[in-house]
Amino acid sequence: MFLYTSPMPNPRDLGLPFPGKTGPLNAITDLPGLEVGHVTLISGEGEGAVRTGVTAVFPCGKSGAHTVPAAWFSLNGNGEMTGTAWIDESGGLTGPVMLTNTHSVGVVRDAVVAWGQARGWAEAWSLPVVAETYDGFLNDINGFHVTQQHAFTALDTAAGGAVTQGNVGGGTGMIVSGFKGGIGTASRVLDGELPCTVGVLVQANFGAREDLTLLGVPVGREIPDLLPEREDTGGRDGSIIIIVATDAPLLPHQLRRLARRAALGLARTGSVAHNGSGDIFLAFSTATPEVHGGLEHWRALPNASLDPLFKATVEATEEAIINALFAAETMTGLRGRTVHALPHTRTLEAMRKYGRLGDRG
Amino acid sequence: MFLYTSPMPNPRDLGLPFPGKTGPLNAITDLPGLEVGHVTLISGEGEGAVRTGVTAVFPCGKSGAHTVPAAWFSLNGNGEMTGTAWIDESGGLTGPVMLTNTHSVGVVRDAVVAWGQARGWAEAWSLPVVAETYDGFLNDINGFHVTQQHAFTALDTAAGGAVTQGNVGGGTGMIVSGFKGGIGTASRVLDGELPCTVGVLVQANFGAREDLTLLGVPVGREIPDLLPEREDTGGRDGSIIIIVATDAPLLPHQLRRLARRAALGLARTGSVAHNGSGDIFLAFSTATPEVHGGLEHWRALPNASLDPLFKATVEATEEAIINALFAAETMTGLRGRTVHALPHTRTLEAMRKYGRLGDRG
Amino acid sequence: MFLYTSPMPNPRDLGLPFPGKTGPLNAITDLPGLEVGHVTLISGEGEGAVRTGVTAVFPCGKSGAHTVPAAWFSLNGNGEMTGTAWIDESGGLTGPVMLTNTHSVGVVRDAVVAWGQARGWAEAWSLPVVAETYDGFLNDINGFHVTQQHAFTALDTAAGGAVTQGNVGGGTGMIVSGFKGGIGTASRVLDGELPCTVGVLVQANFGAREDLTLLGVPVGREIPDLLPEREDTGGRDGSIIIIVATDAPLLPHQLRRLARRAALGLARTGSVAHNGSGDIFLAFSTATPEVHGGLEHWRALPNASLDPLFKATVEATEEAIINALFAAETMTGLRGRTVHALPHTRTLEAMRKYGRLGDRG
Amino acid sequence: MFLYTSPMPNPRDLGLPFPGKTGPLNAITDLPGLEVGHVTLISGEGEGAVRTGVTAVFPCGKSGAHTVPAAWFSLNGNGEMTGTAWIDESGGLTGPVMLTNTHSVGVVRDAVVAWGQARGWAEAWSLPVVAETYDGFLNDINGFHVTQQHAFTALDTAAGGAVTQGNVGGGTGMIVSGFKGGIGTASRVLDGELPCTVGVLVQANFGAREDLTLLGVPVGREIPDLLPEREDTGGRDGSIIIIVATDAPLLPHQLRRLARRAALGLARTGSVAHNGSGDIFLAFSTATPEVHGGLEHWRALPNASLDPLFKATVEATEEAIINALFAAETMTGLRGRTVHALPHTRTLEAMRKYGRLGDRG
Repeated sequence: MFLYTSPMPNPRDLGLPFPGKTGPLNAITDLPGLEVGHVTLISGEGEGAVRTGVTAVFPCGKSGAHTVPAAWFSLNGNGEMTGTAWIDESGGLTGPVMLTNTHSVGVVRDAVVAWGQARGWAEAWSLPVVAETYDGFLNDINGFHVTQQHAFTALDTAAGGAVTQGNVGGGTGMIVSGFKGGIGTASRVLDGELPCTVGVLVQANFGAREDLTLLGVPVGREIPDLLPEREDTGGRDGSIIIIVATDAPLLPHQLRRLARRAALGLARTGSVAHNGSGDIFLAFSTATPEVHGGLEHWRALPNASLDPLFKATVEATEEAIINALFAAETMTGLRGRTVHALPHTRTLEAMRKYGRLGDRG
Repeated sequence: MFLYTSPMPNPRDLGLPFPGKTGPLNAITDLPGLEVGHVTLISGEGEGAVRTGVTAVFPCGKSGAHTVPAAWFSLNGNGEMTGTAWIDESGGLTGPVMLTNTHSVGVVRDAVVAWGQARGWAEAWSLPVVAETYDGFLNDINGFHVTQQHAFTALDTAAGGAVTQGNVGGGTGMIVSGFKGGIGTASRVLDGELPCTVGVLVQANFGAREDLTLLGVPVGREIPDLLPEREDTGGRDGSIIIIVATDAPLLPHQLRRLARRAALGLARTGSVAHNGSGDIFLAFSTATPEVHGGLEHWRALPNASLDPLFKATVEATEEAIINALFAAETMTGLRGRTVHALPHTRTLEAMRKYGRLGDRG
Repeated sequence: MFLYTSPMPNPRDLGLPFPGKTGPLNAITDLPGLEVGHVTLISGEGEGAVRTGVTAVFPCGKSGAHTVPAAWFSLNGNGEMTGTAWIDESGGLTGPVMLTNTHSVGVVRDAVVAWGQARGWAEAWSLPVVAETYDGFLNDINGFHVTQQHAFTALDTAAGGAVTQGNVGGGTGMIVSGFKGGIGTASRVLDGELPCTVGVLVQANFGAREDLTLLGVPVGREIPDLLPEREDTGGRDGSIIIIVATDAPLLPHQLRRLARRAALGLARTGSVAHNGSGDIFLAFSTATPEVHGGLEHWRALPNASLDPLFKATVEATEEAIINALFAAETMTGLRGRTVHALPHTRTLEAMRKYGRLGDRG
Repeated sequence: MFLYTSPMPNPRDLGLPFPGKTGPLNAITDLPGLEVGHVTLISGEGEGAVRTGVTAVFPCGKSGAHTVPAAWFSLNGNGEMTGTAWIDESGGLTGPVMLTNTHSVGVVRDAVVAWGQARGWAEAWSLPVVAETYDGFLNDINGFHVTQQHAFTALDTAAGGAVTQGNVGGGTGMIVSGFKGGIGTASRVLDGELPCTVGVLVQANFGAREDLTLLGVPVGREIPDLLPEREDTGGRDGSIIIIVATDAPLLPHQLRRLARRAALGLARTGSVAHNGSGDIFLAFSTATPEVHGGLEHWRALPNASLDPLFKATVEATEEAIINALFAAETMTGLRGRTVHALPHTRTLEAMRKYGRLGDRG
C-alpha cells in the first residue's frame, strides 16, 4: 500500500485561464466538513501488477451516518454506481461515497456496510454508494487486489484539507484520452447574497485522444503521439465518475439539475460519451434539513437563483478533469504497458498557439 | 353547454366497505382552497353528437398563479399531459390542472395561457398542465367542439365544495370497463400528530369488462352483459388521469412517490394498464414553502412517515374510480351508440355474493 | 449449507382460483433454457443464527455470457439492484441475475465477476446484476455469512426444471405480511398466433399483515394473529424483487412496460409499497437478436399486441407471491425469533368465506 | 405571412474549421424523404409586432402517418414538448414534429390532429409532438397570432431540399446569447461499412453573451456589445429545441442515447443550461421496422458501433447552432426592440485571434 503525496502542479499557476473564483484549496474539500481518503495500491509488475485503489468521500465527515440531500445522473451508463435506487427514492445519501475499480465494487460496498454497522449506525440496513471506473489496462483487475481492509483504511484516513490528485485512490490506474488520468478536483466560490461553494471531484478515465480539448484548445490533436501501447483499449473504453458537492441549500430535484450539468463540463473537454464509458454523476448538498416537531425543515435556493451554481458546476467539472490530467504521472503497469503523463510543456505550447495562455483567457 | 348536477349515489351509503376515513366531502375538495370547475357539453345526435367537456382543478384556488410542489408518473404513456417537463425540472406546478378530451388538449392549453396572462400572472411564459382521455366512442371528437370559451368557463366557475361526478366536465363521454365512466373523486383524512388529507380526482376511461374488480370482487365477470355497441373500441382503448392532492408538506420527489402509488390503487380495480391506455398521474401538495431572505423555507414529512399517505393514496384512488362508476349514467352519443351505467343493484348483489357488503369489509 | 427440497403445496391444487393458463411447471423455468440455482444457508441459533442464501437465475443457461434484452423498474427504491445503469443504457443484461440478502450484495457481485472472468467471457469488464431483500429479522445479516463460494455454488448448480420455493436461496430468511415468505414462482402460457410464455420469480419480503390480500380476499384481516415477535420490524420493512422473464420477442423499452406491470400484480396482494421496501423489478426476454452483416436483427411484438403479456405478467406476479407464501415454512432464527408460515387451512377458510374457492373464481 | 428565403452565409465557406464530413445540403434534409416546412410571420410594429412562425418536420415526408423509432431527453425542462409520454412508452413517433412559440403550442397541436384526421390516418387518436421556444422579447406572443391555418401551411408546404435558416418558421423571433438566433441545421455523413447520415435541426433561443463559444473560441467575450435592449430578458430566458434525425437503424433506447448527446454539442457553444431554458431534444430514425407475420422486424446497429454516431450528433448540433447564428439577421420587433445579428466580420476576427480560422482547425 502506497500513499501517494507528490506536489501537484497547478494548471492555474501555469497560466491556464480558467474562469471563475476557486475556494482556498480549489478542491471538493473547500466544503466545510467534507473529508476525502485515498488508499493507493501500487505493487508488482508484469501479469500481477497492482495499480488500483479506493477513494472515500464523506459529505459531512466520518463521525456519523449523516444523510445529505442527493441526486444522480447517468450520461452513459456503462458503469456502476450502487445505491442509486434509494437516492432517487429518498432524495438522500447516507454515509460515504466510494470510488474504486470496476471489479472491486462489491468488496468495497460490503466493507462500507461492515464499517458502518460496527459504528452502530441507526439503520438496520445500508445501501452504500460505490462507483467505479475500469483500470484493467494497467492493473491486474481480475486479481481482485482491493480488500475490505483497504476500504476500511480509505474510510478511516479520510480527512479535510488538500486532496492528492492524479494516480491516487480509486484513480490510480486510470487513463484520460490516452494520457494518464485519475483523481482530480476543483471548486468554485460564489459570492453574493447567499455565498456558497461548489466542489467537484472526478475519477477520470475517459475519452479518445483526438477529442481532448482544454479550455477550447484541441490539445489532443496537437499532441497525437505519446499514446498507450494499445490505444484502442486504453483510450475509449473508460469512464468518468463526477461528484458534485455544494453547501448551497438545495432540494433533491435541484441537485439532479446540478448532476446533469456535470455533463456539460465534461463536454467541454471534448467527450462525446463513448459507448464504453460509464459516465455517472452524483450531486449532494451538505446543507441538511433540521428535524423538529416531526417535520423536516428545509431551506432551498429558488430555482431562479441556480444559474450561478450551474455555471460553477460546469466550470469546476472542466477544471477538475484538467487537474487530474496535470497531476497524473506516467505509469507502467500490467504486462509492462506504459501510459504517459500529459506533457505539460507541450500542452502549454498548444494553449499559447490558440491564444489561451494567461492574459487572454 | 349543460351543467350536470344530478344527486350522486354514494357507494359508501350503499354499503360498500371502503377502508379508511374520508374527509367531509369525500372529495378532492376536502383540501382547503382547492377548487374544481366543470364545463359539460352534451348536445346533438348522430354524427355530430357532442359528449365532452373540460374540468379545471386549481390546487390553491383561482385567485392567483400559485406554484405548488408537484410530480407526475406515467404508468402507461398512451396519452398526453402537457407541462410535465417543467414539473420534473422545477418540482412545481403553476396554475390549474385541466382535463379534457384527447383532441382538445391544445385549445384548452392555450386558453389557460390566455386566461393567466389576462390576469397579469408574473411569469413571462406559461407551461400549462392539460391532460386528456379519449371520448371518441360517444363524442364527435374530431368536430373539435371544445372552445377557448369553454375552458374559460371551467376556470371561472371553479369552486370548492361538493364535486359533481360521473358524466361531467372532461369526463362527460368516458367509459370504464365497458360501463359509463367519467369524473370520480374521494378523500382520506389521516389523524395523527400531523393530521392531513389526501384527495384524489380521476377522469376514468379505462379497462376491459372481464378485469373489472370492486374491492376484490370480480364484478366484471359477474356482469358480462350491458356492453357498449362495440366493446373492442369502447372497452380497452381508454385511459385514466389521476390527480392526487394533499395538504401534507412534501418535497417534489416525495410527491412522485405518491403519484406512483396511484398505480396501485388503479390495479385494485383490475387494470393491467392496456397498451392503448394513457395512465398518467399527477400529485401535488397545497403546502407551499415560504420565501424570505432569498430562500425558500420548506417543511416536509420524513420519508419514514409516508406509509399512511401511501395507503391513503391507494385507497382514495380505488374509491374515486368506483365513485365515477356509480355516479355515471347511461349515455347515448355518437352514431347512436349507448354505453350503460354500472347497474347498481346487480353490482351490490355481486358484492354480497363475495362477502363484501357492509358488515364484513 | 442446506439444500432445501421439501414438496411444495400447490395453491392451485388447493382450489385457489387463479386466472390464466400456466406452463407445465408453473415456474419461471417454463422458459426454455432458463436455469435457477439456490444455495440455502441455515445453521446456528441465537445471535449467530444463519438464515440466508443466494439464488442465481440464468436467462439462457450458464453455458455462456449471453446478453438478453432487459429493462427494470423501481416502484420503491429502498433496495439495491446493481447493474441497472447499463441495463438502461444498453437495453441488455449479460450473465446471471443474483438474489441474496442486503448486506451480501457486494460479495455476490464480485463473485459473479470472478466466475465469469474465469470462464473467459469476452468483455473486459462485467457489471453484474445482483438484487436483495433484507433478512436481518431472522438472519445474522451483519455476520456476512454469504461467501464467494456460496455464490459460485448457486451459479454452478443452476438448472432447469422445477424450482424449489419458500425458504430457499436468497429467500431463505424472508417475511411477507408477517408470515414466512421467500422465493416464489409462477408462469403463464399464451396461446395464439405467436405462442409465448411469461415466467415470474419473486424474492418476497414485503407488506403489512392488515393489507395482505389473496385473489381479492382480505386474508390478512381474517388472520390477524400468528405475528412475528416484533411485527413492526418483521412486517413493514421488507422488499420484493420481481423477475419477469419471457420468450416473447420484445425490445428493451417494451420490457420496461412488462417490468412496470409487476407493480400491478404486487398491488393485488395488498401492497402499498411501504417506504422501507425495495420494490425493484427486472424484465428480460430470452428471444435475442441475431447478428449478421454488422447489424442486429430483432423481432418484436407490436405494441398493440402486448395486452395479453401485460395481463400474464400481472397474474403471474400475483401467483408467484402467493406461491411463496404457501411454500414457506415456519422458521425460527436470530435471537430465537419465530416467523410463522401462512396457515393453509385458515387461509382456505377465508377464501371460502369470500366466495373464492374453486368453482367460483 | 412572409416566406423568408435570403441566401444563407455558410460558416464553413467563411473558413470555420468544423470537424467532420457533411451531407450534400449540410442539413437535416440530407435524410432521404425528410421534409421541412416553415411559415414565417413578420408583420406590424410596436405593441402588436408579429415575429413568429411555425416549422414542421416530417421524418418520412407528409404522404402518410409514418411511425418512426424515437426518443427524447430533457436537459432542462423549462419548456414544452407534447407527445413525449407516448414516445417513451411506445418507442415511436407518428406524424410530424412541430416547432413554434411557447404560447402557440396548443393551436399547433390541435391543428396537427385535424390535419391528420382529415387525411384518414388510421389511429383513432393522435398525440402530436409540438415543441416551443419563447419569442416574447420580439414578438407579441400574447396576441396568439399563430393560427390553425398557419400550421396547415407549414405542414402542406414541407419539402425536401435546402432548409432556410435563421429568422424563419418557429425560429423567427428567437435570440441566442443576445444575438439573433432561430432555425439552424447541419448534417454529418458517416462512411464505413454501414454508411449513414445524422442530421440536426435546432430552434435556438438560449444562452448568455459571456458564455457564447464557437469551436472553442470565446466569441461572446470578444464581442460584448451589440446587446438587445434588455439583455436580462433577451439573453438568458431562452431555450433550445434540438431534433436529431438519422437513417441509421437504431432501437428506441439507442435513440435516447443520441438525444442525450445533443446536450454535449450544446455545451460546446458555451451553454450551462440556464434555469429559464427549455432544452429539450428529440431523436428519431427513418429506418423503420418491417412488419410481417404479426411481428416487427428491426435492424439495429450494435451499441458498440455507436461512437461515430455519438460524435456526429455532437458535431452536427454544434454546427447547427452556429449556422443559426450566422443565418439570422438583425430584427426589430415588439415595442421597437432590436436584436442584432452576429457580426460576421468581427466573429471571424475572433476566430482568427484564437487560431481557429481555416488551416488550423
